[in-house]
Amino acid sequence: MSDMNGTGWALAKRPVGMPEMDDFKTVNVSAPAPKEGEIQVRNSWMSVDPYMRGRMYDRESYVPPFQIGELLTGGAVGHVQASAHPDYSEGDLIVSMAGWRDVWTGKPQENMVNKVPQTGLPESALLGIAGMPGLTAYAGILRVADLKEGDTVFVSGAAGAVGSTVVQIAKIKNCTVIGSAGGSEKCNLVKELGADHVIDYKAHDSYEALLGALKKAAPKGIDVYFDNVGGDHLQAAIECARPMGRFAICGMISQYNATDVQPGPNNIIQVVGKQLTLKGFIVSTYADMQPQFLKDMATWIQNGDMKFEETVMEGIEMAPEAFLGLFQGRNKGKMLVKLA
Amino acid sequence: MSDMNGTGWALAKRPVGMPEMDDFKTVNVSAPAPKEGEIQVRNSWMSVDPYMRGRMYDRESYVPPFQIGELLTGGAVGHVQASAHPDYSEGDLIVSMAGWRDVWTGKPQENMVNKVPQTGLPESALLGIAGMPGLTAYAGILRVADLKEGDTVFVSGAAGAVGSTVVQIAKIKNCTVIGSAGGSEKCNLVKELGADHVIDYKAHDSYEALLGALKKAAPKGIDVYFDNVGGDHLQAAIECARPMGRFAICGMISQYNATDVQPGPNNIIQVVGKQLTLKGFIVSTYADMQPQFLKDMATWIQNGDMKFEETVMEGIEMAPEAFLGLFQGRNKGKMLVKLA
Repeated sequence: MSDMNGTGWALAKRPVGMPEMDDFKTVNVSAPAPKEGEIQVRNSWMSVDPYMRGRMYDRESYVPPFQIGELLTGGAVGHVQASAHPDYSEGDLIVSMAGWRDVWTGKPQENMVNKVPQTGLPESALLGIAGMPGLTAYAGILRVADLKEGDTVFVSGAAGAVGSTVVQIAKIKNCTVIGSAGGSEKCNLVKELGADHVIDYKAHDSYEALLGALKKAAPKGIDVYFDNVGGDHLQAAIECARPMGRFAICGMISQYNATDVQPGPNNIIQVVGKQLTLKGFIVSTYADMQPQFLKDMATWIQNGDMKFEETVMEGIEMAPEAFLGLFQGRNKGKMLVKLA
Repeated sequence: MSDMNGTGWALAKRPVGMPEMDDFKTVNVSAPAPKEGEIQVRNSWMSVDPYMRGRMYDRESYVPPFQIGELLTGGAVGHVQASAHPDYSEGDLIVSMAGWRDVWTGKPQENMVNKVPQTGLPESALLGIAGMPGLTAYAGILRVADLKEGDTVFVSGAAGAVGSTVVQIAKIKNCTVIGSAGGSEKCNLVKELGADHVIDYKAHDSYEALLGALKKAAPKGIDVYFDNVGGDHLQAAIECARPMGRFAICGMISQYNATDVQPGPNNIIQVVGKQLTLKGFIVSTYADMQPQFLKDMATWIQNGDMKFEETVMEGIEMAPEAFLGLFQGRNKGKMLVKLA
């Protein structure tokens, strides 16, 4: 057992609007040999996710805000280097919330550590398709949106980590799927994943154009909307919803960096006449679905029904750039940073 | 059996914005002696309801639009004058959708007729507390909003036919209730019905003032919002909602007469982080609750737990004025027209 040193990231200041590189600063990280109850870990992968933007505001939310100068946190995969905890041994593969750094020492329970059994999946999948974004997609489309066979489903952000998984689950359940994404490369990906119709929202850059494209793709309307984007997408989905439509509201990335107040959907009155259900959700509420999720996901991946795309940046020094890339639409599928 | 003649109302033209008297015109109604399968009815009461405004637009909706020059329809209570239908006899008390007229002859099934057993309730109650608005309140608060004992409940339009019933059901279920209404007279009524806090929205005529009043009334936030009003009320409710809050979206009377597009709630992103459910509904979807509703309502009225207020205008010639009164806030409780 020996001390390790490494690098981590903290907020230098709170971003205003779109985050920028100088909102972040590096911090030296020391990962000493573990004391009783601790483990020493070298992270191999870390995750950047849109929800992290919310924690950069100083406001009450479902997760507490990041503090200036303190190490950021997030999903990470790592290997135990040394253990002074009875449940962990050198070489164990773990997922934790101790991301945004390459090495760390600490108590497993303080870092939301889970030991990972052998799954045959690559390690990076534990942060994507078989991790938090995968479960978000699974719980959101199956339970929150109460997906039924034959539904017409609209998914925004369909090339992202969550959206691309939603598209595929809906296809597995024999639904008609319309996915929206920005740019032809991403739209091709969504199409390859099985979507019946793809809308390039960058080629439809007014609300009316987006609405027209959605109406064309779903002339009889949509039963389910899985919202990753908010804004015009949400409004168009309300406009095209069929009676009793179900909306799983997972995120609104179009609004995360807004510095002024964003107007809500101007057609929300349709929620009454169409008897729509709009249901916001956070993946942690659906933790009970985790075992079935892993089982289904393993089967689907094995059968070739579930593909996953990753966009990888290499090295801890790239972490902020990977994060900023989420809001620039630079990722296809899961955005990751490879650390070792 | 003899022919009867009377008066009914039709649209003279489609209202633009707030309806006006000259959007309506009287029509002579003949109610001849019934032919086979028909009944001849004299209406004693008719209902005017906010939802009727929606049917005056020429657009697809959950109920088809009224046609210019054709008799309007709506809830009515009447007495069978003569019957050529085996299930009905002279003197039967019925509810139907053949309102907006004082006499009529027709087939029961074409006019959504239900024969009413002796309930001990006054006839007018069949159009209010024990009728469609009562069931709307009952189904909306108990099933759509999934009310739980101890919830903090916010009800807008709390002095109206539906809202005043919601307030009382929530009090029967041991909830803390905040009701909003316009003007001190209505607010006093809401208080008398048992609301713990009352907000006079006319005395808080900016969004910020309304929000401040709601925060003061519910410093720990609200679990349930029953929306009759939309607009600022909905936005304030989202702002004050606790995690997992449930919204029954029953109507948005603030928007029914709008001639331009109304902005949606600018804080709808909170639906995600707070995991809110916004669920629009129409009473007919919950028809299965009717028997239990009537049972509960009879018990509650008998016990003195459920009071109801009516605002009555007299004579078929007053029907449009009663309807317009709904949007001028002239009703406490159910707005009715007494016909006989």
